[in-house]
Amino acid sequence: MLSAFPFQNLSKLCVHTITTKSWAIEVAADKYAKAGVKGITVWRDALAGRSPGQVGARIRDRGLEIVSLCRGGFFAGYTATERRAAIDENRRAIAEAKALGAPLIVLVCGAVPGQKLSESRKQIQEGIAAILPDCAAMEIKLAIEPLHPMYADSRSAINTLAQANDMCEALASPLVGVAVDVYHVWWDPALEAEIARCGRIGKIFAYHVCDWRTPTIDLLNDRGLMGEGCIPLRRIRSWVEAAGFSGFNEVEVFSNRLWAMNQDEYLQQIVRAYSEFV
Amino acid sequence: MLSAFPFQNLSKLCVHTITTKSWAIEVAADKYAKAGVKGITVWRDALAGRSPGQVGARIRDRGLEIVSLCRGGFFAGYTATERRAAIDENRRAIAEAKALGAPLIVLVCGAVPGQKLSESRKQIQEGIAAILPDCAAMEIKLAIEPLHPMYADSRSAINTLAQANDMCEALASPLVGVAVDVYHVWWDPALEAEIARCGRIGKIFAYHVCDWRTPTIDLLNDRGLMGEGCIPLRRIRSWVEAAGFSGFNEVEVFSNRLWAMNQDEYLQQIVRAYSEFV
Repeated sequence: MLSAFPFQNLSKLCVHTITTKSWAIEVAADKYAKAGVKGITVWRDALAGRSPGQVGARIRDRGLEIVSLCRGGFFAGYTATERRAAIDENRRAIAEAKALGAPLIVLVCGAVPGQKLSESRKQIQEGIAAILPDCAAMEIKLAIEPLHPMYADSRSAINTLAQANDMCEALASPLVGVAVDVYHVWWDPALEAEIARCGRIGKIFAYHVCDWRTPTIDLLNDRGLMGEGCIPLRRIRSWVEAAGFSGFNEVEVFSNRLWAMNQDEYLQQIVRAYSEFV
Repeated sequence: MLSAFPFQNLSKLCVHTITTKSWAIEVAADKYAKAGVKGITVWRDALAGRSPGQVGARIRDRGLEIVSLCRGGFFAGYTATERRAAIDENRRAIAEAKALGAPLIVLVCGAVPGQKLSESRKQIQEGIAAILPDCAAMEIKLAIEPLHPMYADSRSAINTLAQANDMCEALASPLVGVAVDVYHVWWDPALEAEIARCGRIGKIFAYHVCDWRTPTIDLLNDRGLMGEGCIPLRRIRSWVEAAGFSGFNEVEVFSNRLWAMNQDEYLQQIVRAYSEFV
């Protein structure tokens, strides 16, 4: 059935390990490669108890490109102690990315309930600045991912692409860019303009796809596979590419419903949905 | 217990009937008045099978001010037939508001999955323009309520206060203003500036309060009572009042958890939370 489908070129297809989270990373690497997937973004939980270097070697041996490590960030904290711990954790992530061979870490920047969002953004900027020397030493880039406003309470105080672009400009480092995830930004009336701006300042470091289902029954784990929802995927991709981005289209889906499926069939659906809708 | 609490002045406290939705409107009016609530916003479902005129008279007899009727809108539609039906439904809402004695209708403006949000906004503007003559004839105002971006798929293509202000300016009618609901807009980095703008153009017609819980477990019906979450209620109220608003603070809470409580105790909690946190 897979082979009967007229697939588009899959050379830009990347899958996040979280998308098929029940698979051990070795299994994921094997299955992705066999299905024609070309890139993989590794979530840190998938590395638990493993040597990142050995995992990286195995992934490359299967012909997959390691696109990024997910995820760093969470720089906001009520106390200086918490914020220092977050910076230390990010340094560990940088070392992991280096050992794995991932050139980029995606940042979920952080927020803590009840703290002013502007204060959290200040802490985020300070946190990123603090780890930039480590990034430079290890040759690892960082992608600020603006998160949907429904995550402003506890996950990120950066909720629009405009804010992510602003922070890139404030940090003014060639190592800091943006991850554009359609799930978080599709609703934004400024999206086309801010993607263009992000391109002009050379900051589109990653592009993530999935879909928004109606109704959405869970704030975290009810994302749709591409084509199952209302996000104008082709239109947004055209904006991103017009802005100069030529990297992978990364499939990042958190879904209790899809995680409960047979994951081999699900991977076939991912490849098919990528071909039809991205 | 209620009387032992040092309540602040409740003269600006309004409660939406949906907040205590298991109560028939007659019961709600009696209980609200007895608890010291001064205003009521009536949801249309609460009028089912009743004469709006008689309901309005009864509410006023209890000493409550009718603040608004919730809700009109839903102007976006795939077909002209659907959009005409929405306009007709809004005309019925206007007649209901007139009979009830509500001076204002709150608009959840509408969106339909897969239709461009900019197209939905065009349809919303056309829909509001179409009913303005009815509003003028009946002396009913309209409040555009920007909805949280998590409702952009199917409830509203107006997702920021800036967009609501823009639409007010485009419609340029003294009958059209904005309902600011903290749940929808608290995260917006432009909030303070857009509240000030809304005040400058004389368009803050309503102010709704509740809270954002962490974690939020349902996209629709897991709002918090004021003080249960992370929204800076006092700060936002100060912005709204600095912008010239002097109307009611309307408690609008959708919560499966709170609806399951004893509603008499819940109403006491509402009054207490209003005193402490709004």
